[in-house]
Amino acid sequence: MLTFSDIAATLSTLAIEVPSWAYGNSGTRFKVFPQKGTPRTPEEKIADAAEVNRLTGLAPTVALHIPWDRVDDYSRLRDYAQSLGVRLGTINSNTFQEEAYKFGSLCHPDPKVRQMAIKHHLDCIEIMRQTHSRDLKIWLADGTNYPGQDDMCSRQERLDDSLAQIYTHLAPGQRIVLEYKFFEPAFYHTDVPDWGTSLLHCLAMGPAAFVCLDTGHHAPGTNIEFIVAQLLRVGRLGSFDFNSRFYADDDLMVGAADPFQLFRILHEVVRGGGFPNDDVQLMLDQCHNVENHIAGQIRSVVNVQEMLARALLIDREELSQAQEACDPLAANQVMMDAFYTDVRADLADWRVSRGLPADPVKAFRDSGYQDRIESERIGGNQASWT
Amino acid sequence: MLTFSDIAATLSTLAIEVPSWAYGNSGTRFKVFPQKGTPRTPEEKIADAAEVNRLTGLAPTVALHIPWDRVDDYSRLRDYAQSLGVRLGTINSNTFQEEAYKFGSLCHPDPKVRQMAIKHHLDCIEIMRQTHSRDLKIWLADGTNYPGQDDMCSRQERLDDSLAQIYTHLAPGQRIVLEYKFFEPAFYHTDVPDWGTSLLHCLAMGPAAFVCLDTGHHAPGTNIEFIVAQLLRVGRLGSFDFNSRFYADDDLMVGAADPFQLFRILHEVVRGGGFPNDDVQLMLDQCHNVENHIAGQIRSVVNVQEMLARALLIDREELSQAQEACDPLAANQVMMDAFYTDVRADLADWRVSRGLPADPVKAFRDSGYQDRIESERIGGNQASWT
Amino acid sequence: MLTFSDIAATLSTLAIEVPSWAYGNSGTRFKVFPQKGTPRTPEEKIADAAEVNRLTGLAPTVALHIPWDRVDDYSRLRDYAQSLGVRLGTINSNTFQEEAYKFGSLCHPDPKVRQMAIKHHLDCIEIMRQTHSRDLKIWLADGTNYPGQDDMCSRQERLDDSLAQIYTHLAPGQRIVLEYKFFEPAFYHTDVPDWGTSLLHCLAMGPAAFVCLDTGHHAPGTNIEFIVAQLLRVGRLGSFDFNSRFYADDDLMVGAADPFQLFRILHEVVRGGGFPNDDVQLMLDQCHNVENHIAGQIRSVVNVQEMLARALLIDREELSQAQEACDPLAANQVMMDAFYTDVRADLADWRVSRGLPADPVKAFRDSGYQDRIESERIGGNQASWT
Amino acid sequence: MLTFSDIAATLSTLAIEVPSWAYGNSGTRFKVFPQKGTPRTPEEKIADAAEVNRLTGLAPTVALHIPWDRVDDYSRLRDYAQSLGVRLGTINSNTFQEEAYKFGSLCHPDPKVRQMAIKHHLDCIEIMRQTHSRDLKIWLADGTNYPGQDDMCSRQERLDDSLAQIYTHLAPGQRIVLEYKFFEPAFYHTDVPDWGTSLLHCLAMGPAAFVCLDTGHHAPGTNIEFIVAQLLRVGRLGSFDFNSRFYADDDLMVGAADPFQLFRILHEVVRGGGFPNDDVQLMLDQCHNVENHIAGQIRSVVNVQEMLARALLIDREELSQAQEACDPLAANQVMMDAFYTDVRADLADWRVSRGLPADPVKAFRDSGYQDRIESERIGGNQASWT
Repeated sequence: MLTFSDIAATLSTLAIEVPSWAYGNSGTRFKVFPQKGTPRTPEEKIADAAEVNRLTGLAPTVALHIPWDRVDDYSRLRDYAQSLGVRLGTINSNTFQEEAYKFGSLCHPDPKVRQMAIKHHLDCIEIMRQTHSRDLKIWLADGTNYPGQDDMCSRQERLDDSLAQIYTHLAPGQRIVLEYKFFEPAFYHTDVPDWGTSLLHCLAMGPAAFVCLDTGHHAPGTNIEFIVAQLLRVGRLGSFDFNSRFYADDDLMVGAADPFQLFRILHEVVRGGGFPNDDVQLMLDQCHNVENHIAGQIRSVVNVQEMLARALLIDREELSQAQEACDPLAANQVMMDAFYTDVRADLADWRVSRGLPADPVKAFRDSGYQDRIESERIGGNQASWT
Repeated sequence: MLTFSDIAATLSTLAIEVPSWAYGNSGTRFKVFPQKGTPRTPEEKIADAAEVNRLTGLAPTVALHIPWDRVDDYSRLRDYAQSLGVRLGTINSNTFQEEAYKFGSLCHPDPKVRQMAIKHHLDCIEIMRQTHSRDLKIWLADGTNYPGQDDMCSRQERLDDSLAQIYTHLAPGQRIVLEYKFFEPAFYHTDVPDWGTSLLHCLAMGPAAFVCLDTGHHAPGTNIEFIVAQLLRVGRLGSFDFNSRFYADDDLMVGAADPFQLFRILHEVVRGGGFPNDDVQLMLDQCHNVENHIAGQIRSVVNVQEMLARALLIDREELSQAQEACDPLAANQVMMDAFYTDVRADLADWRVSRGLPADPVKAFRDSGYQDRIESERIGGNQASWT
Repeated sequence: MLTFSDIAATLSTLAIEVPSWAYGNSGTRFKVFPQKGTPRTPEEKIADAAEVNRLTGLAPTVALHIPWDRVDDYSRLRDYAQSLGVRLGTINSNTFQEEAYKFGSLCHPDPKVRQMAIKHHLDCIEIMRQTHSRDLKIWLADGTNYPGQDDMCSRQERLDDSLAQIYTHLAPGQRIVLEYKFFEPAFYHTDVPDWGTSLLHCLAMGPAAFVCLDTGHHAPGTNIEFIVAQLLRVGRLGSFDFNSRFYADDDLMVGAADPFQLFRILHEVVRGGGFPNDDVQLMLDQCHNVENHIAGQIRSVVNVQEMLARALLIDREELSQAQEACDPLAANQVMMDAFYTDVRADLADWRVSRGLPADPVKAFRDSGYQDRIESERIGGNQASWT
Repeated sequence: MLTFSDIAATLSTLAIEVPSWAYGNSGTRFKVFPQKGTPRTPEEKIADAAEVNRLTGLAPTVALHIPWDRVDDYSRLRDYAQSLGVRLGTINSNTFQEEAYKFGSLCHPDPKVRQMAIKHHLDCIEIMRQTHSRDLKIWLADGTNYPGQDDMCSRQERLDDSLAQIYTHLAPGQRIVLEYKFFEPAFYHTDVPDWGTSLLHCLAMGPAAFVCLDTGHHAPGTNIEFIVAQLLRVGRLGSFDFNSRFYADDDLMVGAADPFQLFRILHEVVRGGGFPNDDVQLMLDQCHNVENHIAGQIRSVVNVQEMLARALLIDREELSQAQEACDPLAANQVMMDAFYTDVRADLADWRVSRGLPADPVKAFRDSGYQDRIESERIGGNQASWT
């Protein structure tokens, strides 16, 4: 049985990217409930993200979403982030909120629309140059609502062609991470519905293309940790979008729905060489519809940290022995023992030892930050998904 | 084997209620794609609904959604509808778009919010008096996103109390239909998640309370026709919200995803005395996110009509014999024979014989109606879910 | 925040019924893998169950399955159990392994088959008299594989009638617990597929009929703790069949698949008055296909104990305050704090203080019991599901 | 709109392989209900399969399952089949019914067990030589029931190695088809759970390895026709196991659960060049638990034929136009028009024109075949899954 001191050094390398849009308002098709103090600008989102990092030491980079985070001067935004102790991270493209994309973007039957979508990605690559970002994340809303609406195979060919055009514009060191999603917003078929499809397109693009795994984008019952293991095995797991779900793509706080699943996922990340490993970007993608945005983000990065600690505590030597002995009870027990180990006090100590608050959520509540932004951020348009 | 002439008279009694909101814009949390010609007012929605009825003879009533369809003078709206050959139907309450309802409405922990939601329903009952509507449909977005967020059992008690207060205000002949939904917009628990919960509350309210079954509101794999049979058996099936789904509450056109399921549902409706039966209100509840609103509605009522024809064609005598003989192949064959019978030509003849166009969708496309509304409905705010 | 000493007394009342059949071989339709030392007789099953109780202090009663546990003299079996420190518990009827039941039992179209199935239940009631059992558990495999195979509504009527006949034979103090199941072995429809159906039949039978909730018998994504809360609220939750699942009715060890779900379920049991409460029978129903039967049972009862401890640790005062304040993060945190509390050392101490081994699974492995039964139980027919 | 005469010639090339084991008894883990007249030998299974072909003209080949269909002299079995007008087809290996395979076969931690499983496949390849079979179908029951039970990644490496060893023994013209399955009999993880995993292993093996798609082996809600399109696009769809399902791997008659899904699948087969195409083997894999084995098979091949006719009737020119015009209603209508076309009378005529009975199921019932086998096949052991 390992102890916290065995894993502390490794655990300390944890860095989780937070998404700028998590600090804006979000909701369902029924209603977006606004929150007081919500950022109006990319700068204000970055300020909130920096607060998460300040209190946890876990969130050194912020992902942007284009056009939601479009600014005139990205190098200035980069400097602004740096002044708050964080860096700009993944650039997320958006091809689902223009009228033109009603029937698709990179897969659209009309070459003009495809070209428009490709152009958007080239713009994102240019932004990446300015923000010093490594990853271009592509999540496509492309798909159809009705059988026959479009030809699924032709759409694959168009996607193949569009991605190839984008890929050639990557600068050295830049990567594409291609996300897959089971359904939504399309309700009959999605053009990149599963890891197999994403992987095929990554293989077609080339060595700088990787799969992005969003933990909420699978069919009910899918064994996600198996996919993690498989993608790490073939060297194509590029990044995670962490969140949790009970039903569909609920985008709840990571660790809130099935914490044992998160544990198993992180175990496979560790076991497969995905951590510590800069090439596997751990990121949140969540919607704090009913809870405070910032506190929700703090809780989430802490959840990942706690669960990663538990996963690191697995005695892999003992586990292997039980596995080789075909003793399912003993092997499972090794897993459960790590999962049920209470790492919270050790982590509080670890935080204090690094000048961080023992309880980051409480520290945030006590900090007055929320009051301050509520009184300062008056007027303007609160950021949301539009 | 029955023939179309055996069932034509019964089939002719079919009346499907259409929802006013289907003619407005709708979408997902990612994007609402507006359509040209979309209604700006309740009157324009009714006009579009009347067009559906004019072309199909199937949609004599229009359901309203309060406050989306709030007007100053409901009797004038009623007269307007009548002038277009349709009537006002079910009144749908809405307790999900006020800030106050962020944590619930009839189940909210705060009695003031509950009272506000109850008051809204009493307003709806008053509107029903003016619109001559029979049914108050209650679909609640109430629920929680996180374990522990609220006490599920207390919420049931509050719901019980709220519904009792509303129920007592029903006038003679008025009914409550209480809808259930598996999930969305709440992602951990829904306060009326299943038919069992809805039925318990209906039984507690009294004889004028009935369950509303939305075909898109179930867990994956649920045998919906069994629920239909069960609710008819206990005399508490009040109404249907028809639509179809591949994944969640996709709100696609009825019959588009699994037409055989629709067939089985309608068979149980017929077999259990739900058709012809005015007490079981057949209604659409759909979102035409990517297809033309009006044509989508026309297609949908025709889909129900075609499928009901197939269900009526089931030779129930022969079916019973095979069932009693425990001959699953023969029994199933009776079902499939009816399902695979092509009723389209007979229905086209039936339409022509009643002065209706043989092909209502084509007739709509040829009618110039869409061009007219696109040129007339300029300016104003297009109706959508807000 | 509560501590273990606050809950120890309450926790000490925990009693979990174990199923005799868990000690026999089980498997899938593909293969049953036999285990050495598997019981050949009801007595040997009871001996194994008694071993579980001896090592954990948690399993004082053993459920029987008729005809699998048919003996000539049930009072002698009762005495035998008592001599090993356990009692006989729930009697489970079996109407799925006779040729006659191919198309159903209590719902069969043929009244002769129904009568045979009713008679079987009366036999079970007579056995209950002799075993001093309170509960007759009815799980029905009844259903159909193909649409149209039988009339679902007629089957409900037959079920209603059959249950009424059985119910009238209950002696005072005896109860029926009626289990529901989503699917399997029937693949199109199940005659008691959900809690709503089970509850309707219980209400029809009378006050001594209760619903049995098997945690593996739901559609994907079903919020089981909501059902627990609802059934407790209406006073009709009679018993649990605990097990865990990733996909269907996998019958894995309870707590193995989604321990946080088990936690939430047990929280609702406590909150709704289901524990401590003799009227809510906690029971296992599992298949140890690949793991040692006895060790699997030990692990399972300990899993329930550990998780019940965590559920009891929830600070319900603090939880209520956060709930009333509509603070989802704080409320959820109260839940998570209890869930992540490591109760294992406290439970080990508790065991030692009561003369039990600190680690019951290890104690079993060290006890030589398994070696002994493997050498003693040679020849004969190992118990399995036939 | 196409007519039956446009498609008759193409449709006439349809050939569906039937599985020998469909004529034996099958069931669930709860019970296998035996049927009178069930074959006791491979020869009797082939005789039944030949009867299906005689009455439908659709089933010219019979797949074998080793060891269930082990005989001393395979060339004699081949001659026997030929004498009845059919040929021997795919050889299915079986690595799930030996004690040694409790914890896996090609993925087992123990190299001796892996070697045993590899050896079994080499035996199958030798049998293929004698039976003149092209395809070795590998479906693996390998997987685990509990998290941690074995290392998922190591199992992939072992699988990779095992398959490579088997692959090298293929003779020219022989192929491996590797099936994937979501779950069952393993309940935590399956070693080949999805098409992506199967494809990766096929790519690793070489050009003679193909994916086998069983229509019942997916997560709820999976868009199977998308997978068909994708696998055809990359040239690796080797064969189908047709059946239908409502819940899990129910193995019901193809076309019985969601006939519109079967239609969409067959449309993608046709559109992607999978029919007519000898390289895509269409096969049944079903369990006739409650219906007559032979009649169930007849119904199934006819269901595929009828649905393929409907799929061929799709006016692909018109469909493409509507797709390019981004007109989802028109495009969907083209699909639905074909689906709702009643092809049964045309197919009856087609049959008669080829000397086949117009109604093969009725012809079977009238033929006296079933009576004959029931009286002849007395004694012996009825074939089942063991």
